[in-house]
Amino acid sequence: MIEILDDHPREECAVTGIYGHPEAANMAYLNLYALQHRGQESSGITTSNGKKIHSEVGMGLVSDIFNKDRLSRLQGHIAIGHNRYSTAGHSNIENAQPLTVVTANQTISLAHNGNLINGIELRNDLEKNGSIFRTTTDSEAILHLIAKSKEEEIENSIIEALRMLKGAFALTIMTHDKLFGIRDPNGFRPLVLGKVTGSKGEIAWVMCSETCALDLMDAEFVREVEPGEMVVIGKNGLESYKPFPKTSVTQCIFEFIYFARPDSFLFGHNAYTIRKQLGAELAKESGIDADLVVPVPDSGLAAALGYSNESGIPLEMGLVRNHYVGRTFIEPQQSIRHFGVKIKLNPIKNYLVGKKVVVIDDSIVRGTTSNKIVEMIRTAGAKEVHMKISSPPITNPCFFGIDMPSKKELIASTKSPDQIKDILEVDSLSYLSIEGLLKCVSPNEDEYCIACFNGEYPIPVEQAQNQLNLFKNLSISEHRG
Amino acid sequence: MIEILDDHPREECAVTGIYGHPEAANMAYLNLYALQHRGQESSGITTSNGKKIHSEVGMGLVSDIFNKDRLSRLQGHIAIGHNRYSTAGHSNIENAQPLTVVTANQTISLAHNGNLINGIELRNDLEKNGSIFRTTTDSEAILHLIAKSKEEEIENSIIEALRMLKGAFALTIMTHDKLFGIRDPNGFRPLVLGKVTGSKGEIAWVMCSETCALDLMDAEFVREVEPGEMVVIGKNGLESYKPFPKTSVTQCIFEFIYFARPDSFLFGHNAYTIRKQLGAELAKESGIDADLVVPVPDSGLAAALGYSNESGIPLEMGLVRNHYVGRTFIEPQQSIRHFGVKIKLNPIKNYLVGKKVVVIDDSIVRGTTSNKIVEMIRTAGAKEVHMKISSPPITNPCFFGIDMPSKKELIASTKSPDQIKDILEVDSLSYLSIEGLLKCVSPNEDEYCIACFNGEYPIPVEQAQNQLNLFKNLSISEHRG
Amino acid sequence: MIEILDDHPREECAVTGIYGHPEAANMAYLNLYALQHRGQESSGITTSNGKKIHSEVGMGLVSDIFNKDRLSRLQGHIAIGHNRYSTAGHSNIENAQPLTVVTANQTISLAHNGNLINGIELRNDLEKNGSIFRTTTDSEAILHLIAKSKEEEIENSIIEALRMLKGAFALTIMTHDKLFGIRDPNGFRPLVLGKVTGSKGEIAWVMCSETCALDLMDAEFVREVEPGEMVVIGKNGLESYKPFPKTSVTQCIFEFIYFARPDSFLFGHNAYTIRKQLGAELAKESGIDADLVVPVPDSGLAAALGYSNESGIPLEMGLVRNHYVGRTFIEPQQSIRHFGVKIKLNPIKNYLVGKKVVVIDDSIVRGTTSNKIVEMIRTAGAKEVHMKISSPPITNPCFFGIDMPSKKELIASTKSPDQIKDILEVDSLSYLSIEGLLKCVSPNEDEYCIACFNGEYPIPVEQAQNQLNLFKNLSISEHRG
Amino acid sequence: MIEILDDHPREECAVTGIYGHPEAANMAYLNLYALQHRGQESSGITTSNGKKIHSEVGMGLVSDIFNKDRLSRLQGHIAIGHNRYSTAGHSNIENAQPLTVVTANQTISLAHNGNLINGIELRNDLEKNGSIFRTTTDSEAILHLIAKSKEEEIENSIIEALRMLKGAFALTIMTHDKLFGIRDPNGFRPLVLGKVTGSKGEIAWVMCSETCALDLMDAEFVREVEPGEMVVIGKNGLESYKPFPKTSVTQCIFEFIYFARPDSFLFGHNAYTIRKQLGAELAKESGIDADLVVPVPDSGLAAALGYSNESGIPLEMGLVRNHYVGRTFIEPQQSIRHFGVKIKLNPIKNYLVGKKVVVIDDSIVRGTTSNKIVEMIRTAGAKEVHMKISSPPITNPCFFGIDMPSKKELIASTKSPDQIKDILEVDSLSYLSIEGLLKCVSPNEDEYCIACFNGEYPIPVEQAQNQLNLFKNLSISEHRG
Repeated sequence: MIEILDDHPREECAVTGIYGHPEAANMAYLNLYALQHRGQESSGITTSNGKKIHSEVGMGLVSDIFNKDRLSRLQGHIAIGHNRYSTAGHSNIENAQPLTVVTANQTISLAHNGNLINGIELRNDLEKNGSIFRTTTDSEAILHLIAKSKEEEIENSIIEALRMLKGAFALTIMTHDKLFGIRDPNGFRPLVLGKVTGSKGEIAWVMCSETCALDLMDAEFVREVEPGEMVVIGKNGLESYKPFPKTSVTQCIFEFIYFARPDSFLFGHNAYTIRKQLGAELAKESGIDADLVVPVPDSGLAAALGYSNESGIPLEMGLVRNHYVGRTFIEPQQSIRHFGVKIKLNPIKNYLVGKKVVVIDDSIVRGTTSNKIVEMIRTAGAKEVHMKISSPPITNPCFFGIDMPSKKELIASTKSPDQIKDILEVDSLSYLSIEGLLKCVSPNEDEYCIACFNGEYPIPVEQAQNQLNLFKNLSISEHRG
Repeated sequence: MIEILDDHPREECAVTGIYGHPEAANMAYLNLYALQHRGQESSGITTSNGKKIHSEVGMGLVSDIFNKDRLSRLQGHIAIGHNRYSTAGHSNIENAQPLTVVTANQTISLAHNGNLINGIELRNDLEKNGSIFRTTTDSEAILHLIAKSKEEEIENSIIEALRMLKGAFALTIMTHDKLFGIRDPNGFRPLVLGKVTGSKGEIAWVMCSETCALDLMDAEFVREVEPGEMVVIGKNGLESYKPFPKTSVTQCIFEFIYFARPDSFLFGHNAYTIRKQLGAELAKESGIDADLVVPVPDSGLAAALGYSNESGIPLEMGLVRNHYVGRTFIEPQQSIRHFGVKIKLNPIKNYLVGKKVVVIDDSIVRGTTSNKIVEMIRTAGAKEVHMKISSPPITNPCFFGIDMPSKKELIASTKSPDQIKDILEVDSLSYLSIEGLLKCVSPNEDEYCIACFNGEYPIPVEQAQNQLNLFKNLSISEHRG
Repeated sequence: MIEILDDHPREECAVTGIYGHPEAANMAYLNLYALQHRGQESSGITTSNGKKIHSEVGMGLVSDIFNKDRLSRLQGHIAIGHNRYSTAGHSNIENAQPLTVVTANQTISLAHNGNLINGIELRNDLEKNGSIFRTTTDSEAILHLIAKSKEEEIENSIIEALRMLKGAFALTIMTHDKLFGIRDPNGFRPLVLGKVTGSKGEIAWVMCSETCALDLMDAEFVREVEPGEMVVIGKNGLESYKPFPKTSVTQCIFEFIYFARPDSFLFGHNAYTIRKQLGAELAKESGIDADLVVPVPDSGLAAALGYSNESGIPLEMGLVRNHYVGRTFIEPQQSIRHFGVKIKLNPIKNYLVGKKVVVIDDSIVRGTTSNKIVEMIRTAGAKEVHMKISSPPITNPCFFGIDMPSKKELIASTKSPDQIKDILEVDSLSYLSIEGLLKCVSPNEDEYCIACFNGEYPIPVEQAQNQLNLFKNLSISEHRG
Repeated sequence: MIEILDDHPREECAVTGIYGHPEAANMAYLNLYALQHRGQESSGITTSNGKKIHSEVGMGLVSDIFNKDRLSRLQGHIAIGHNRYSTAGHSNIENAQPLTVVTANQTISLAHNGNLINGIELRNDLEKNGSIFRTTTDSEAILHLIAKSKEEEIENSIIEALRMLKGAFALTIMTHDKLFGIRDPNGFRPLVLGKVTGSKGEIAWVMCSETCALDLMDAEFVREVEPGEMVVIGKNGLESYKPFPKTSVTQCIFEFIYFARPDSFLFGHNAYTIRKQLGAELAKESGIDADLVVPVPDSGLAAALGYSNESGIPLEMGLVRNHYVGRTFIEPQQSIRHFGVKIKLNPIKNYLVGKKVVVIDDSIVRGTTSNKIVEMIRTAGAKEVHMKISSPPITNPCFFGIDMPSKKELIASTKSPDQIKDILEVDSLSYLSIEGLLKCVSPNEDEYCIACFNGEYPIPVEQAQNQLNLFKNLSISEHRG
């Protein structure tokens, strides 16, 4: 078995929450289906009918986990849901979310997109006071903190817990009668608010990671949950809290570059539009004489279209993608050229023979896939291969919810673009500049976290640097099922 | 689907623990295999190689859950294991044991046979102090209490926790480097100690619910873990603690009547021998003129043999059992006489036609199955049917680890033997007397709990009466997998 | 993985057929459930509603294969069913029965218990004429022969085919509107006829391998299908054909010794009764002074009861069986005494220590299990072990539907009882004599095939000797599913 | 459950064959993986090591069916493979291919892409002569014909059988020592020949449906198997036979329009290139003033690029596809606008609001999906919607291997383009003309079958018209597994 090559960073999660819908579980299912690109490892839904809470959680894709039986067990008008991607070592059903626990006052279920940088510290403090842990996720600590709070109102218990968190967290939380949607004060991860108006004028509320999930369920986009906001929805309708001290907003710019579905609007923009602009800006910054522009499908398609429009060089779908690629593949013993990448992509030779080719992708992480793609295009007969990347070099790992390799595995952290050009064996290599990037996403640059490009983390990350390893060494190793 | 009729009370669990064996997981697997009769719903094994702990837990029979892959992941020389039976409502993988948690000092895994009567009270106290629960078992509270202890030594933390428990508990607990075996001070549930001597004289220790598990793994029976004893096995060998105040010993007499495998020795006796004596005593107390003695297979076989020997009435296997009966069955729409019981049992008519038949079984709980068996024997042509039960009428439910129906469902709690005789439509019905029962198991009657027959619970059970319902209403309802 | 030791020959199949029942599939399911002991490898049901035929076939036990969905797809008032055991090499879903094929005139489905000795010869002839085969069963040839017939009436086509068969065959065959039940002229394998009378007097017919299947479905036993008879049931009721030339009847005596469920009546007798008589006869022939009689459970139980009654030596259940044994088991690396047999059986030591023990079993095939049982009883402390077998030495393999090892693997084919006694390390070994055996089953000895004891095959088996190997070499090797 | 809306015709199969490769099964696996778009319902591989043939067949996707275990059982240097799509009624494992049978002379395995128009006739003739059928595929008849042949050489037996077939068939057939690749004389379905040269110069041969499968396994494209050619590969290398009388070549033009993967070369052309030309031709024929060109992803992408290039109207990816769509989906009870299509597609509103939009797709079959796509684009705010189809109106069903609805379900068979325009509620609707289509694919129009557009079937199809229904009524209905 080999894993199918993909050199993209990986989003860790999607979250959703529904309140006031007669088919809340079905709506959560639709949302998770639309947000499958944010996590393909596990998926879960918790619902409440106002009295009883029930949860269904499984490993795999949304469409494989939820059959009629499982959905029919999810009764009620409140739901939260979660899609998860995680690193191999801790890929087990115990870590899958939503996490549901019984506390003194009530049952609470939680779905978390993001990453706490003080997760290990919180965990150590809790354990010293006798708390026991069943998962190796930092999300479990949030539930412990809520349970520990002596506040009487659940709103206040949650606020007390939230104030102890550092890092990235877009959360949906539910009790038997309330739904909470929370974005950390930096606003790292997206969370949008929508509503569905029923045939009799009754309103159901939705909070989810991206607007594409609103579209599938026919919900109207209302607004984004703001950085540092806690939205509470209950019998008395929607209330907004701002429990955090004011801080600067630093939304994740990589949502635009790669993660978000092209049709989603988030952080005030449409992802596809931004991607085309990045491509156009790239053409302005590093235009070159060439015969055709070829996107790496599908991640480079929008930028390639922008590049082609701006440069006048025709776009050709010179690399074709196999749409039936799964997560693993059984490798033959005999070596085959460019094998790992060929499972996914195949060049159309007659477009490439003797041509000067501009290849467009959104980013380079380790450089492993880019390398094989370039080789493949050369083998197909291209005269020149010019690689253009619609974002700056990634020099630093993310601690705010994106799974990237360690700093030393990031090719641009130790190599200059010139060196990378030599490694990839391309005729030229151009990245988009940080300035070019910011010009596309905002007139006002300080609205985004661009730490992966410039190392300036909005929150100090010394703790975080080693906590990832600590989590990997946690000693619960369990296989249930 | 119908459930296959069985009117026996159900044991809730088997536990095992192994220390110092190079194939500890395989030995735990053998033990659980031999103890499958004590729980068929879920099974699990946790092992430690001295550093890392790993757990494999699944739903179903031992032979279905553990394949080579799962066993090969269970590395190490220490293991604990658990078979579980549970009531339908909470039959889920989250509740399956061993339960493994991370605490401040170490990872702890626990397997529990029995039932705490202060489980809900402990849980409420813990939740008030911020503990969160992931299962609906009372066993999880024990782990919380251990985690809360400020003692430095794990022995002392466990002792501090144990002293807060009321009820029935035979436990095996392990940390990365130690194995604990504990019986509550009343000694409700059995736990035996054995050892295996390796080819070089090295000793591996075993603690498990019944001796039949020692036999399968070729272990030598050493002694029973005593009521109120905690055996600790670690690098320095075996140590014994007696952490509880002295109390009277009240071992569960139903282990002899029905639960234990006939080949097991426990509470100082062999189960098969006791059962034959119960049958012989029954013949003495209520002998009757009859043509043949027919056991309800297999639960009444040993008592029937004792009855036949004592009375001189020949034994005949006049009811034949289908050995391939599973837990459920798809029922035809058309009614079939005695259907539920006929799936399991079939009479041999030519032995019954025109005969006076003594039918022997070990106990009557609701009376539902007995009723159908009697009907079946009559339909087969018997002239007279005399039912003889090798234990007294069950008048009170158990709160110490046996799953029985509520008091009002117990036929003997509201009906006299004479009324039951009429309901079952037998020519006569005899139960063994309490005195007769005690004569067989002990010269000294106060060594056993006979509360199910006389209502004199060794520990006050007011709390316990409603706690079962409280547990059933606990609001975690989750399906993972 | 080791296979659980069992030294019994194996029956190859059970068959059933239902006509005129509104829940024909459910009735076939009940029958197969009751006949599970005759084959545990695969199971299938075919039904017809008078127009359309549908079949559901799977690997494993009846209760695992047939869920509500599968049964609900089996519509109609006619059904046939089959349980199969087969040797490892050809254990695949393609070979599972009923086999259903489309011919020029109609769809035909067939279930076969038995073994053709001219199977390979028929197959070769058919292939030479262009027939193609999808299974490696001899049963498929029967369908080809029916399809080849130029007769217009299906009755005549089947008769034409039947006349070409040599060997053992109890068949149920169905078309869209008729049910056929057939026993070969020697009557090797059993087939009984029963009926169910509905609430309005309507009659449904059943044909199945043993009467225990009639009992479960509340059917009345009518008679046995006679050797050489073809019973046809259709719109005009039941018709009987005798298509074969007269030959001597040679029913399989091993049905009594081991295969049939004790509660079944077949060949005019009840199996349990015969088994007790075999035990009593054994006591008469080779009585010995001893302390107790211990059956090998459950195969030796009835004979042990007969032996105990006749000899006056008390019966003790000194070997206890684990009721949860599956087909395979994961073996530890470390050797454990008597391991293979201990998974199934465990001795109760205090009954055996210092005793002269008579151990009763029904037969010895290879001797491998007997050996381990004797060792186990000796290790438990018995002073003397006397093995008594309630049938004669098996000296020749069966070619008429029982799966036995080859002649050279049969311990009694090359060793005298004295030599076997030494190999088993018993103090004495006695088999029942052929005369003693026949005395129990019939006043007239020539009604049974006793070829496995005396080598006198009722049909010449030269062909058969090598055909088993030929079938094993057939080149379809396929895994579907 | 609803099926995900897709209004495309469906290809029925992919075939492959490998000869002389040490990892033949792995190569077949790669081929089937690359050809997954031609059939997603079942998949199978048969291999031979020169002596023994083994087959593994399962339901679902290639990556789900073939694990390491199954591939490791497929030993040998010869392999054939098959991916199948089939209509619901006969979607069962028995019909999955390769089909393997035992004949008098040898075991034969066959994989078939296409459809026989005399399948029922052949089947009836065979059945009349006593052949029995196990599947409801027309492919099984081919095996019967081969088995019936009295020719001694397998080449001649196959040729004798082939000459009796009418219709579309691209076949790979294997015996224990030979591989056959065959295209019917009209050449309806594609089949290409490639080779892999090993490190020591040894050559392995491949025949498969499309060149994209050659690319993945690093094979060199040699040539297409010609219409009417039988290629035989054995110990003596490759031989070519032309067993059919000469007829006109009528290759399936729909392979270019929709089926073939864009990177494949077949019938002398590259599919992506043809598709762009169709789009350009469409722009020439029915150019219109508009703001943007939006493809229906991914089927309309290449044509839209051609249209955009030719017309100068900018291409926008205004419809975004969810890449994680499975075959079915659980529908909420509450109605959601455009639900069926929204699961797959979502518009990006800001590109469509107030715009004149040209929507490009490859074909319209029933019109059901197009309708919903248009509605969706209008709801998103488009001012005008102009639908352009890069092929002519489909007026007639296919009987040569493509699964289309019946004539009356084809919207263009009963409605004029004007009427369809009204039904779809578009501002304009244009199809490509037949002349325009032929101009793109060939200077010489009679090389293609365009019966679905003009009703001129290259082989009379009267028989075929009702045979599809006959196959659907065939009475084998079986579920194994």
